Amino acid sequence: MALNKKSSATIRASRYANRDNTWLCKFNYSEAKGLGREIGVDRRDPSSIIKVQGIYYVYYTRSEGPSTFDRSNEKDKKFPWDFADIWYATSKDGINWEEGGCAAKRGPSGSYFDRTICTPDVLAHEGKYYLVYQTMTTTEFYTGGNERVGMAISDTPEGPFEPLEKPLFEAEKAGVLFDDEDSYNTGEFYGNCHDPFLMRNQGKYYLYYKYGSRKAEGGGPLRAYAGRDTRWGVAISEDVKGPYIPSVYNPVTNSGHETLLWNYKGGIGALINRDGPEANTVQYAEDGINFEIMSVTQLTPQAGGAYIPEDGNGHPLDGLRWGLCHVDEKGGDWNYIYRFDTEAGQADVLPVNNPPHLYRGE
Amino acid sequence: MALNKKSSATIRASRYANRDNTWLCKFNYSEAKGLGREIGVDRRDPSSIIKVQGIYYVYYTRSEGPSTFDRSNEKDKKFPWDFADIWYATSKDGINWEEGGCAAKRGPSGSYFDRTICTPDVLAHEGKYYLVYQTMTTTEFYTGGNERVGMAISDTPEGPFEPLEKPLFEAEKAGVLFDDEDSYNTGEFYGNCHDPFLMRNQGKYYLYYKYGSRKAEGGGPLRAYAGRDTRWGVAISEDVKGPYIPSVYNPVTNSGHETLLWNYKGGIGALINRDGPEANTVQYAEDGINFEIMSVTQLTPQAGGAYIPEDGNGHPLDGLRWGLCHVDEKGGDWNYIYRFDTEAGQADVLPVNNPPHLYRGE
Repeated sequence: MALNKKSSATIRASRYANRDNTWLCKFNYSEAKGLGREIGVDRRDPSSIIKVQGIYYVYYTRSEGPSTFDRSNEKDKKFPWDFADIWYATSKDGINWEEGGCAAKRGPSGSYFDRTICTPDVLAHEGKYYLVYQTMTTTEFYTGGNERVGMAISDTPEGPFEPLEKPLFEAEKAGVLFDDEDSYNTGEFYGNCHDPFLMRNQGKYYLYYKYGSRKAEGGGPLRAYAGRDTRWGVAISEDVKGPYIPSVYNPVTNSGHETLLWNYKGGIGALINRDGPEANTVQYAEDGINFEIMSVTQLTPQAGGAYIPEDGNGHPLDGLRWGLCHVDEKGGDWNYIYRFDTEAGQADVLPVNNPPHLYRGE
Repeated sequence: MALNKKSSATIRASRYANRDNTWLCKFNYSEAKGLGREIGVDRRDPSSIIKVQGIYYVYYTRSEGPSTFDRSNEKDKKFPWDFADIWYATSKDGINWEEGGCAAKRGPSGSYFDRTICTPDVLAHEGKYYLVYQTMTTTEFYTGGNERVGMAISDTPEGPFEPLEKPLFEAEKAGVLFDDEDSYNTGEFYGNCHDPFLMRNQGKYYLYYKYGSRKAEGGGPLRAYAGRDTRWGVAISEDVKGPYIPSVYNPVTNSGHETLLWNYKGGIGALINRDGPEANTVQYAEDGINFEIMSVTQLTPQAGGAYIPEDGNGHPLDGLRWGLCHVDEKGGDWNYIYRFDTEAGQADVLPVNNPPHLYRGE
């Protein structure tokens, strides 16, 4: 049988391994009862979900009152994640949730977290509970300056969580620059560290975060490939409380907005949701750094956090079986939390018993 | 500024050019009035849309009666595209459609198109109208044998369309085999040629078609990367009536189910919808063969056909501004036709004013 010549698509195909459907997945959505839409309250950015003595815990950004989406008055709440604190909720079944109260509060005026704390993640390890979250000062919130990651620690999942005196991690001041002009990962990446996500892996601590150009984050023009100019970095520490050293391999993705990762087989799985050429892909890195595309999906959960069971059956998507995400509605309506369930081995195609316009609720 | 080390994602990023949002797009859906759901009738696989003296024409697969989805009795209509003919509809505005009647009928018993003709496309050129469609014989329909592409020609868009005596194109009997074992485009691809799509470009005729392994098409297990094991080939001819010679570069994609392409700047744009590692991407090939990824999208139209204006304003997505697609509902409900409109420069993110479960009509 003669060999054909290789088209561009076949040349690219050498990068896509020949797999079965193990990593394939589609997402189903349902209500997270007790965390649904509530007038006057924004709830968003749910953390990973932990289970303590049979009870599920989730942590999330919570703020009250309308958002202006306008920088003209620094006293106004600008975004749903402005003037926010970290709250928690509990559930016996992962479906019915009860808000438990404030887990971590923003700091006093002049502190590194005096404006807002938001986009939390949680790690439970050896009887301690570690919350990480993005912090902003009032000054920085209005200038788009470098943000920091804060940490608060508790002996119980309900708190009280004691914040560290200093930031856990501060974004690199300078961007990174690669010399390949045509690459999507070339250029300067300004120092920001959004959506921190803390993993324990191979005895070390991996702090993932989103970063990109300020322009991209500040509502600049969308770039090709599905959206904004964002990607993820990672900083690694021997100790959960730091210091976290940014990987010299940053950025570790070329795409992705909010961080969502899970442990699998000594490595780390990642759901790259919107933004970038690899938007809507499931990826895996044996070393937590060099991620490979494992499957392509769509309608991914936004700002999701999953329950990562310690007793999974060894399926790579065990750490993504279900979780919570948020509905971030345009026009300033109230953000709220939703549940997703991941169906492994399935691809999402067009509507079943419903015309496609219903997909968008048009 | 020091150079960082390149992560796997940054190495991959060298393949994603540094673009603006020109090729970015999202799809909005609405009713194609007059071609909506009708009990007892399947309408699907709309062709490209042509405009003749101010009237839009579309051609599509039409069949009547329920489908069994079962091979046990060859006299039964198995699929919505079984025992089908090609019909046409007209519209003044692209929204309100009127079914015009049968444009091309399947052939007499024993002919190469005696079982069904389906998945049409149309090309208007110099006062002639060329319909292409997939043909199947009764024998082949039940054994999964090689299919053929048929052509029928008319002097008017309403017909009568006269079928060619012989098939326009027959799939390569043998598959292609590449020597790179790890590549997604390695392996044998059985001879089939579904969803023919006929383009005129640079004075030649390009007949695109979908092909893959029989296993993939026969409902075998889904592969990773978003679905089935399908991709596109192209066969090129100097004359619209053939002979069409398969490109030695086949396959020209590594992904994609139903074909949807358009002319742009002397090259050809392609919407890769579901299936494969590059599902949900917009691509472009200057030569109609070597396609590059231009943007990433989601919720793509299924089996779509677009209106390709001759007087576009030079935007790459002019040939994808609007068109028709189908709703192929699971469980044997009636297939019907829907309209899509393409919003350029925008990425599709999660719901606006609606919870995500409405996306799927759950």
